Amino acid sequence: MQRLEQHASFGGRQEVWQHDAASTGTPMKFGIYLPPAALAGEKCPVLYWLSGLTCTEQNFITKAGAQQWAAQHGLIVVAPDTSPRGAGVPDDAAYDLGQGAGFYVNATQAPWAAHFRMEDYVAQELPALVERHFAALPVRGISGHSMGGHGAITLALRHPGRYRSVSAFAPICAAAQAPWGRKAFAAYLGDNPAAWQAHDATALIARPLSERLPLLVDQGEADEFLPQLRPDLLQAACERAGHPLTLRMHAGHDHSYYFMASFMADHMAHHAAALRAP
Amino acid sequence: MQRLEQHASFGGRQEVWQHDAASTGTPMKFGIYLPPAALAGEKCPVLYWLSGLTCTEQNFITKAGAQQWAAQHGLIVVAPDTSPRGAGVPDDAAYDLGQGAGFYVNATQAPWAAHFRMEDYVAQELPALVERHFAALPVRGISGHSMGGHGAITLALRHPGRYRSVSAFAPICAAAQAPWGRKAFAAYLGDNPAAWQAHDATALIARPLSERLPLLVDQGEADEFLPQLRPDLLQAACERAGHPLTLRMHAGHDHSYYFMASFMADHMAHHAAALRAP
Repeated sequence: MQRLEQHASFGGRQEVWQHDAASTGTPMKFGIYLPPAALAGEKCPVLYWLSGLTCTEQNFITKAGAQQWAAQHGLIVVAPDTSPRGAGVPDDAAYDLGQGAGFYVNATQAPWAAHFRMEDYVAQELPALVERHFAALPVRGISGHSMGGHGAITLALRHPGRYRSVSAFAPICAAAQAPWGRKAFAAYLGDNPAAWQAHDATALIARPLSERLPLLVDQGEADEFLPQLRPDLLQAACERAGHPLTLRMHAGHDHSYYFMASFMADHMAHHAAALRAP
Repeated sequence: MQRLEQHASFGGRQEVWQHDAASTGTPMKFGIYLPPAALAGEKCPVLYWLSGLTCTEQNFITKAGAQQWAAQHGLIVVAPDTSPRGAGVPDDAAYDLGQGAGFYVNATQAPWAAHFRMEDYVAQELPALVERHFAALPVRGISGHSMGGHGAITLALRHPGRYRSVSAFAPICAAAQAPWGRKAFAAYLGDNPAAWQAHDATALIARPLSERLPLLVDQGEADEFLPQLRPDLLQAACERAGHPLTLRMHAGHDHSYYFMASFMADHMAHHAAALRAP
């Protein structure tokens, strides 16, 4: 564990760490915001943030403006990189496969299976590390953007009991039907689309589930990637399954961090209400 | 005038424009945040933001989190690039001279004098353009960071009546005494240090002035560039001259946008109080 950055921020501290991750067999970086309460020694719940295609651990911590709300609510916010990286890690020339595009699954196919184990990393290894090294309660929420919104919803659905709250900005709602998801799933999980359903938020919501966490989703109506995102499919699946969904469509908003920053306060309040509940 | 970007943001719109600037003889880019009031047709006061060394028009608009406060107060916020740029524009291999390092002066020396006319651009040409093309009142505040904090204070002092409010984050308070400023002033203004005094905030404050706008300055105590910034010299000059200064030193804070974001609400309120006063 090596601390690469630390910056005072809204009475707390934004840090960036690197560690050798067993899941991926690579060094992994993550951002962690420690609110004033955590710096004062109080154990705090943790919100995990999953970023989108091409992002590193930097995008969210520099652009989303979440620290001010995390400080108010006493939430730790952990933002990992979006894939393993490095010279020995497979990659693809396209932005939407390989490094920067882990899709939060455990790959089963060559050449990806050795390192691309982002589900294990995000859902298991990283929380264990955070809860061991920081003033963190084993009380977790999860959120994310685009590919990371897909990751947040599918990880919450695939790991009942592991998270108490979930939300997403402009998630890929039905990855097995989206060009981005189909390409990544074919590479990481193989050619059989049946295997993809277990990592498709809309398909998972249709299954019998032991837990149905209320889902908050914000989506811009001017989002240039709407045909990849399909909140309409998520909404229909939630209606059919009786899954609690608050889907907010925002006129004029695009896919950028300007959109996310505009509604970040609401997401942080959504998570705080669940994570700080007695 | 060409619009390069537009993003919905906190009920308003963050835009980026490019135009052919007469002052610099180059295309210049600037960010402009239009608050909800401006989009509704109400003319709004304008805060000019000057960024620091190496920055473009992007740094402030993506990282500072100012839009939420500008939306609340009904302020337009304009953030220009920090210098002329392009293949035909002189440059230096170092980060602190040439492109990205205009220092908000009109250069008098070769090879800089032809294009490096950032004082004319920021104080004259850009406000005229903004007040012609947008729902902007001729009511102006100015702020900035580091080299841009130097720019904000010196432009406000050098152009009495042009601005109604001024503030800075971690400004270079006495550029004629700082290594950064001495290098830039020698290149842009020539070897005679007497010419530098007219662009040194601390020296200007010691002069007889027709106007003394209250100055708000925030400075991190863990700022790695403190020896270049010298808020102590600014404070002493303000005390001697009876110049109204609120200097806030912040334990643990560094030179980053994390520092600025933490106190941006106070700066926006400071400007709104002056710019929205009857």
